[in-house]
Amino acid sequence: MKHRTPPTVGMVGAGQLARMTCQAAIPLGVRVRLLAERSDDAAALVCPDVTLGSPTSAAELAAFATGCDVATFDHELVDAAALADLEAAGHRLAPSAATVALAQDKRRQRAELGRHGFPVPPYRPVETVDDLLAFAAEHGWPVVAKASRGGYDGRGVWVLDGADAARNLFAVTSASGVALLAERWVPIERELAVLVARRPSGEAVAYPVVETVQRDGICHEVLAPAPIAPDLAAGAEALALGVAEAVGAVGVLAVELFLSGGGLLVNEIAARPHNSGHYTIEGCATSQFAQHLRAVLDWPLGETALLAPAVATINVLGPPDGDDPAARLPIALAVPGAHVHLYGKTARPGRKLGHVTALGTDVDDARGRARRAADLLTGRVAAEVLA
Amino acid sequence: MKHRTPPTVGMVGAGQLARMTCQAAIPLGVRVRLLAERSDDAAALVCPDVTLGSPTSAAELAAFATGCDVATFDHELVDAAALADLEAAGHRLAPSAATVALAQDKRRQRAELGRHGFPVPPYRPVETVDDLLAFAAEHGWPVVAKASRGGYDGRGVWVLDGADAARNLFAVTSASGVALLAERWVPIERELAVLVARRPSGEAVAYPVVETVQRDGICHEVLAPAPIAPDLAAGAEALALGVAEAVGAVGVLAVELFLSGGGLLVNEIAARPHNSGHYTIEGCATSQFAQHLRAVLDWPLGETALLAPAVATINVLGPPDGDDPAARLPIALAVPGAHVHLYGKTARPGRKLGHVTALGTDVDDARGRARRAADLLTGRVAAEVLA
Repeated sequence: MKHRTPPTVGMVGAGQLARMTCQAAIPLGVRVRLLAERSDDAAALVCPDVTLGSPTSAAELAAFATGCDVATFDHELVDAAALADLEAAGHRLAPSAATVALAQDKRRQRAELGRHGFPVPPYRPVETVDDLLAFAAEHGWPVVAKASRGGYDGRGVWVLDGADAARNLFAVTSASGVALLAERWVPIERELAVLVARRPSGEAVAYPVVETVQRDGICHEVLAPAPIAPDLAAGAEALALGVAEAVGAVGVLAVELFLSGGGLLVNEIAARPHNSGHYTIEGCATSQFAQHLRAVLDWPLGETALLAPAVATINVLGPPDGDDPAARLPIALAVPGAHVHLYGKTARPGRKLGHVTALGTDVDDARGRARRAADLLTGRVAAEVLA
Repeated sequence: MKHRTPPTVGMVGAGQLARMTCQAAIPLGVRVRLLAERSDDAAALVCPDVTLGSPTSAAELAAFATGCDVATFDHELVDAAALADLEAAGHRLAPSAATVALAQDKRRQRAELGRHGFPVPPYRPVETVDDLLAFAAEHGWPVVAKASRGGYDGRGVWVLDGADAARNLFAVTSASGVALLAERWVPIERELAVLVARRPSGEAVAYPVVETVQRDGICHEVLAPAPIAPDLAAGAEALALGVAEAVGAVGVLAVELFLSGGGLLVNEIAARPHNSGHYTIEGCATSQFAQHLRAVLDWPLGETALLAPAVATINVLGPPDGDDPAARLPIALAVPGAHVHLYGKTARPGRKLGHVTALGTDVDDARGRARRAADLLTGRVAAEVLA
């Protein structure tokens, strides 16, 4: 695949994933052009080539894609039909419109993954509360209900303990036209994730499987490698590579997995760099952002091995008091071995404002140092305590 | 020292050092504002906050410094008197006008280093050819003549083998008003460099001493650690820390050394991030660019130890045929363990267009992989040979 020198990669969306992609593009000499909704979006603050526009406008997407060698995505909140039109008009998208359509719609995603024989939790699309009650009659309570589209960070997921909860949920979702699927509640021993990168030519690489530690549906910690048996880890990586090929991924694809009953289930996929892969910036020779650029440009992929026995990433969420962690950055920088990343976003309670990564001799060592810096940033621990 | 959150660091000059500083600023959430001479300067291509102007204009510097929490430098080609005026007007510069004045003037630099008792090669400012002949009569031929200001990458340095060569040089330099110093030609066993970072508060750290391999006065390779005895390495690092304190450095300071007759001589200093420190991006926990930002903002400094037994950086110079190495990037990315950095500059023969860093189990291992990728970029080796 031939590009101009240097190539221009268009990125739809300008959040922290786009911001870290801009950072990774600098040494590669790749130009990044952003389609941002606001001029103070995280990535727009660090990129000289920003178009303000809506990712759901077909016309604005078309104008944006013109002049980009390839367009890629910071999020899935786009109109897949408009993307298909872009492809038909000759624009190159990575991932493709078809892959984005799967990634943004849990019903279609589950159906496609099941069709290929990948293990998924028992589930069913449900249109009415009676559908859900019938599912519960088969699988038992609790039932997990999920919005098919638009959910993230715990939003759009409900654990229903009985018929009343189901009726309450439908009272809200029916009115707003939210399509749901019902999923059997499975006991989760661990949540895992595997990042894969895949080129149009088919070359694909997997990063080591990681454990993601969620709280209230939000990823708080990522631990690499996941503390699981080697054969299970190898199985998870092979599974993720298989999913990437099955869905025709181009670029980075994150495959979120449940370890349940000793086996692996595919929870969902994200066809882009992913929160579970931030550890790769310092933890691997090739960060997920550099890898994504290489993959969407059909360039040779880079090495994915860990550079240390263990790597931990802790997300920095806005503290309840509304304080801005950026004001405490100097204190956190004093923690040896802590790599602090701030996204330049306005502080709000619970908002993902940054992350901290640390390498270590084992997971506890890495997590301990990352946690200390993160706690200083959020004010959970005062600097004096550590002095 | 209090700054706004986030702080804005102004950088005078927009070459590759500024470009890599922009990259390092992203995770720290630090805003970088550039004073660039051209809109296609290496750093201007990747920074959203660019002022076009001349670094030698006092008025433009003053306008630029306003609104920056601190101003720093990509190069020394500035008017130190104008900088002193800026400081008098309350602007914060890091390094200070006084340190920049030393760094940009080899005569003053040598005098100051000598005054503090640091070892320097025997030298003398020379105003006339007779001054130089008198120096040669004392120290013997050859004599090294150096332009006191403005020289870099081998420009402004002449090795004179006798009186005729001296007269020829003065015929040119007198006409153009170039101030010279004469330096005794000393046998150089190795050229070494030590990067130091120093905060206004006085905290300072040294990176491991490296060997710089020059060809025609241009640095081609940087090898870390330098292959010298541990006590000599410790001496070099202590010497560089002493120089940084003596010249009141703030930010990164590079101290270039000669290993001559088994002892160390200070050749020159650069009060900014330096070509000899690019290896720190992948080779150390804290890159020289992140360290420079931390130091000029008076934030805690980061760790400087090597992350591998050896790290090598090879500069990528524009090949003689004028080809652009960026066009060969995909081939070079296929070399395992090679970290390619391109600066976005227009290719010209001999111009520094990028560099490649590799980590390794020993210097030969690291250098071998960096060299292979660099040779592919410059077309010295065809891809087929390696296939």
